Amino acid sequence: MALTIGVDIGGTKIAAGVVDEDGRIVENLLRPTPAQHPDKVADAIAEAVLELAGRHDVEAVGLGAAGFVDETRSIVRFAPNLAWREEPLQKKVAERVGLPVVVENDANAMAWGEYRFGAGRGESHLVCITVGTGIGGGMVFGGALYRGRWGMGAEMGHMQAVPEGRLCGCGNLGCWEQYASGNALVHEARLIAEQDPGRGARILELAGGSVAGVEGEHVTKAAREGDEAALAAFASMAAWIGQGLADLAAVLDPGCFVLGGGVSRAADLWIDRARDAFDRSLTGRAHRPHAEIRLAELGPSAGLVGAADLARQP
Amino acid sequence: MALTIGVDIGGTKIAAGVVDEDGRIVENLLRPTPAQHPDKVADAIAEAVLELAGRHDVEAVGLGAAGFVDETRSIVRFAPNLAWREEPLQKKVAERVGLPVVVENDANAMAWGEYRFGAGRGESHLVCITVGTGIGGGMVFGGALYRGRWGMGAEMGHMQAVPEGRLCGCGNLGCWEQYASGNALVHEARLIAEQDPGRGARILELAGGSVAGVEGEHVTKAAREGDEAALAAFASMAAWIGQGLADLAAVLDPGCFVLGGGVSRAADLWIDRARDAFDRSLTGRAHRPHAEIRLAELGPSAGLVGAADLARQP
Repeated sequence: MALTIGVDIGGTKIAAGVVDEDGRIVENLLRPTPAQHPDKVADAIAEAVLELAGRHDVEAVGLGAAGFVDETRSIVRFAPNLAWREEPLQKKVAERVGLPVVVENDANAMAWGEYRFGAGRGESHLVCITVGTGIGGGMVFGGALYRGRWGMGAEMGHMQAVPEGRLCGCGNLGCWEQYASGNALVHEARLIAEQDPGRGARILELAGGSVAGVEGEHVTKAAREGDEAALAAFASMAAWIGQGLADLAAVLDPGCFVLGGGVSRAADLWIDRARDAFDRSLTGRAHRPHAEIRLAELGPSAGLVGAADLARQP
Repeated sequence: MALTIGVDIGGTKIAAGVVDEDGRIVENLLRPTPAQHPDKVADAIAEAVLELAGRHDVEAVGLGAAGFVDETRSIVRFAPNLAWREEPLQKKVAERVGLPVVVENDANAMAWGEYRFGAGRGESHLVCITVGTGIGGGMVFGGALYRGRWGMGAEMGHMQAVPEGRLCGCGNLGCWEQYASGNALVHEARLIAEQDPGRGARILELAGGSVAGVEGEHVTKAAREGDEAALAAFASMAAWIGQGLADLAAVLDPGCFVLGGGVSRAADLWIDRARDAFDRSLTGRAHRPHAEIRLAELGPSAGLVGAADLARQP
């Protein structure tokens, strides 16, 4: 059975794995991402690939990169969390490993993984959303990833949700991901803890007493205990997620949304509210089928598996 | 040369035309839309088609309908301005005319017309927006209309632009079309006329002195004369159009937007401002090509021409 290697390159970790045609990971390994120099990142990717290729007969390599990847799937134009600017990542890694290499946006790779082997299998119109620190997205229509004219599509986290709203890392104001992501959850919880310390007492306690110390894990733990303030923070985030999915459905009319990313691992705390908000906000809701909202099935390795499978596609 | 008939069915008028393979209208005619009964609408469409088919050798009929058309391109599930609810329009018209019939959403038909014969010719990733009373849309990707899973895609006028914003005809609050359409222009102008009658004097004069009498034509005329209040109303609408296009570009990354519809006929009054707002709002704007924003070329017959051409597609 033909094997390929998938690599998921994040701001802190490089995850590489050998994947078979059924999307199973045969072997994988994790490396820290060398911080600042693009050549060092390429070296680290190549080292991981060559180590795996030494033990398995692999045909090609797919790289999932957290950044804007151009339409030729070769160049990372810009990455918010890495020192990539017009980085010829495909060429650099291909030269180092001597195998065919394709580069894909990491959220696109995740969407492809879920389409091929996960919660989106067989869907003709699939929209995947990764709810993590921010929001990423990927879309598969008619069996093909939708990349847009210049490979910059599916950046739905940067639709404007609130005019003149919260400042986003992208430089704009009011982006959806500032209201519907892990960052938004923490923002909401800190606001409660600051403005009403009694109400936010349990969150504050878990965070060691400081508002600025509140992180997602504290909000999640408090919510699991039934803490009202933590649940309210989740409810706010969920309502924004549902609204954004309704906006996307107005444009894309998908058959199915798949939600992944770190915040989705606590989806039992918020998914029903997100579904409710979606059903209440969908335009023409009385006259159309409603898209299903499912949870991703492949977990954190969806991007790696998707990138490996994309390397196999003609 | 093979001929087909295109029919554009609006709330007040039915426009039918014989169209050749190059998108040229060989003959066309206009009929009032019979108001309330769906069977009467089907009769009127069939009558227009049969009259034209009596004089030309036509192969098929394409209907552009202002409503939600299902994924089989047969049934109008719902139309805001006509008495269609789960209306089997394809079957009714095909029975009456004895020719192959396809039904398409009118904005999709317009987008297809501009893609085949107008401002979007040859674009691989095209998004068309009709700015009229409201906002309609159509998308052509890789040479095919994008309809969505159930044929309900491209309703971008109903993305939420303002949380808890103005009430929309769709029942939701804050839809984009409430800020970026002809209705929005009139809303803005009436607001100025009401709150500052001195500033809105010229608009009011053109409207016969009553705020409620202000219509789009008055605002356009005043703006053409250089009236500051009218130009401000256009500027507000244009800024919202640019913002919405930036939101769409975040998701779809098209190579080109084509703007049509009645309000686009006065585009010289606002298109530059819309382009500015788009360029300022596009996420990642420093690291990517910016989609072109063009004006439609086929005018009011784009829908008819597009529907006729869709009837010709396999």
